[in-house]
Amino acid sequence: MNSIFADLPTTVFETMSRLAREHQAVNLGQGFPDDPGPLDVRRKAAEAVVDGWNQYPPMMGTPELRRAVADHYRDWQGLDLDPDAEVMITSGATEAIAGALLALIEPGDEVVLFQPLYDAYLPLVKRAGGVPRLVRLVPPAWRLTEEALAGTFSPRTRLVLFNNPHNPTGRVFDAGELELLARFCERSGAVLVSDEVWEHVIFDGAEHRSVLALPGMRERAVKIGSAGKIFGMTGWKVGFVCAAPGLMKALSKVHQFLTFTTPPALQQAVAYGLGKERDWFLSTRANLQRSRDRLAAGLTGLGLPVLPSAGTYFLNVDLAPLDPALRDEAFCLSLVAREGVAAIPVSAFYAEAPVQSVVRFCFAKTDATLDRALERLSGVA
Amino acid sequence: MNSIFADLPTTVFETMSRLAREHQAVNLGQGFPDDPGPLDVRRKAAEAVVDGWNQYPPMMGTPELRRAVADHYRDWQGLDLDPDAEVMITSGATEAIAGALLALIEPGDEVVLFQPLYDAYLPLVKRAGGVPRLVRLVPPAWRLTEEALAGTFSPRTRLVLFNNPHNPTGRVFDAGELELLARFCERSGAVLVSDEVWEHVIFDGAEHRSVLALPGMRERAVKIGSAGKIFGMTGWKVGFVCAAPGLMKALSKVHQFLTFTTPPALQQAVAYGLGKERDWFLSTRANLQRSRDRLAAGLTGLGLPVLPSAGTYFLNVDLAPLDPALRDEAFCLSLVAREGVAAIPVSAFYAEAPVQSVVRFCFAKTDATLDRALERLSGVA
Ligand SMILES: CSCCC(=O)C(=O)O
Ligand SMILES: CSCCC(=O)C(=O)O
Repeated sequence: MNSIFADLPTTVFETMSRLAREHQAVNLGQGFPDDPGPLDVRRKAAEAVVDGWNQYPPMMGTPELRRAVADHYRDWQGLDLDPDAEVMITSGATEAIAGALLALIEPGDEVVLFQPLYDAYLPLVKRAGGVPRLVRLVPPAWRLTEEALAGTFSPRTRLVLFNNPHNPTGRVFDAGELELLARFCERSGAVLVSDEVWEHVIFDGAEHRSVLALPGMRERAVKIGSAGKIFGMTGWKVGFVCAAPGLMKALSKVHQFLTFTTPPALQQAVAYGLGKERDWFLSTRANLQRSRDRLAAGLTGLGLPVLPSAGTYFLNVDLAPLDPALRDEAFCLSLVAREGVAAIPVSAFYAEAPVQSVVRFCFAKTDATLDRALERLSGVA
Repeated sequence: MNSIFADLPTTVFETMSRLAREHQAVNLGQGFPDDPGPLDVRRKAAEAVVDGWNQYPPMMGTPELRRAVADHYRDWQGLDLDPDAEVMITSGATEAIAGALLALIEPGDEVVLFQPLYDAYLPLVKRAGGVPRLVRLVPPAWRLTEEALAGTFSPRTRLVLFNNPHNPTGRVFDAGELELLARFCERSGAVLVSDEVWEHVIFDGAEHRSVLALPGMRERAVKIGSAGKIFGMTGWKVGFVCAAPGLMKALSKVHQFLTFTTPPALQQAVAYGLGKERDWFLSTRANLQRSRDRLAAGLTGLGLPVLPSAGTYFLNVDLAPLDPALRDEAFCLSLVAREGVAAIPVSAFYAEAPVQSVVRFCFAKTDATLDRALERLSGVA
């Protein structure tokens, strides 16, 4: 049995969703909307599965979806991608991340990561043979600083695994931070793998800037996206990988042996969905922003200190001002069992020396769900 | 860039399907039926995607599908599986195989494989850190012998990656061979990972015997199945992993970071499909058997020597009696370009010292498709 996985706990998201079911709690833990997702996109999938092709599509993805991805990123992010050589469809962004690490890391390579980090990253980096080097982001600002990067990058840095917009902090890194990161990648000759699954889930008029658009990064960055997040149907597991042909060659070799393909009916529906008019995406953002503001106002009203969230489905509560002795994990366990609200302790996103004073709530929910949660939380602060 | 994948060619199945499209050839290469798959199962998926849950299902799979898998294998293979602890759903059997290797191999472990082998196996074993040891199966009988196993197993053998029914040979290993293999696994303390995706595609009244039913193997075997193969919809990418809880613990840890989940609408449809009456499965087999016999008779009539096929979508032609100098790869390239029929050179399934006299044809096609191929092949022998 492999020693990296042997002692790993079940992912905190799954555990919290299980506890939520057991305690009939309002589940603001694992990140998924309670809206069922756009009906027209689901209908396209239904049509395609009945009338369309259900055998292996081309392993890089259907030509229609690859073109739709390239067109979408041209229109929204100004990227110029060749759909035949620079776009690949995967069975979710998780496969894309796992594949990129297995494809691009040679055992012994140093890999830079940022904590708090999504819980899949570190075991995957280690299993690929990478030697992790962690940059620490610190609440409440969670900024990327030159000092922190300088202390972590080395001439042996071969890969950087980045996430923007950032889960769990809700940060959208600014131009200065992104250019700083690009400079460090270029200097060390590292490939920048960027998990951008939250690219459409940004608020307050922000625009997403992909790593592929950063100076010097077009040939050395891998951009990862997710239809599940774009359309709020997290079970669909249709991911996108964009990278220059030289990198794509290695990425596709791993994909062909990791899942090989992704259900064609879902690919056809996503291709349709990506072509929806601009307003659909903007009103989806506006709705999520309203939900963010509703939950933030409610929590603030209850006396819980809310940190800013510029993107993702998540906002964080800082327990430190309430009571410096409060630990996020104990707080969340009591919350789910006693108040009937599930949330995620942010310490679960740390590999070492966890920040233990921050709790993450998912606001991608109906008003009714958010209000029910707020009601249950009324005695907590 | 990782050195194992850097120089790997694109999978032969994808390459041949591309050549088939380019030459408008009849595609008897990559293994997929030209029947669209059972309409009722596709309709269930359509219903589920419109009316059902499109968010993350439990990462082990939906409870309905896990139960359906356990029930199905009880009824068909006499297995006694706990759906809550011994069944996991993956995004296709490919993910299941990749995950099992990443979960169960510790770098330096010896891994026994059988060639001809499916082209994903060897790079995945190497990337997981395994040291491959190859057992050679030899045409025309392709038998598993005590001598070959004794020369390959060692006290350092930790894992065995097996495939039954076997692609590309079309062999269904007999009780004597399976028990021999089990004995070797037990003696060396190895885990037996068995790719049984062709378990329902067997002919002439045969019954599938899973490794989980072999003496001593219940706690040390991992059985992998595939809805795509069972229902002849190869693009669906819904796989099953069955193993005792001790092994499942490690397998699930990798799954959670490799794809995490599989689309719930497809899971619901597969759960429904697995419960179809016995006759559906038997008549599906009978139809495929008729197709096998049609292609075999046609090829034999053309003077091409056909080897027996007891299972899978495939039968093989042995070129050696025709002309000992004929090479399978050259033969296939000329076949697709000059005759307009795509087939797979079996040498692509060898890691070393390839047998170069055998060509694989997929017979999971309509009569019209098979007849068209046979017509085009009429001048070839
Ligand atoms: C794969 S379950 C976790 C979903 C998610 O992105 C989150 O809750 O952070
Ligand atoms: C993943 S494409 C190959 C399909 C198959 O099983 C085969 O043709 O052998």
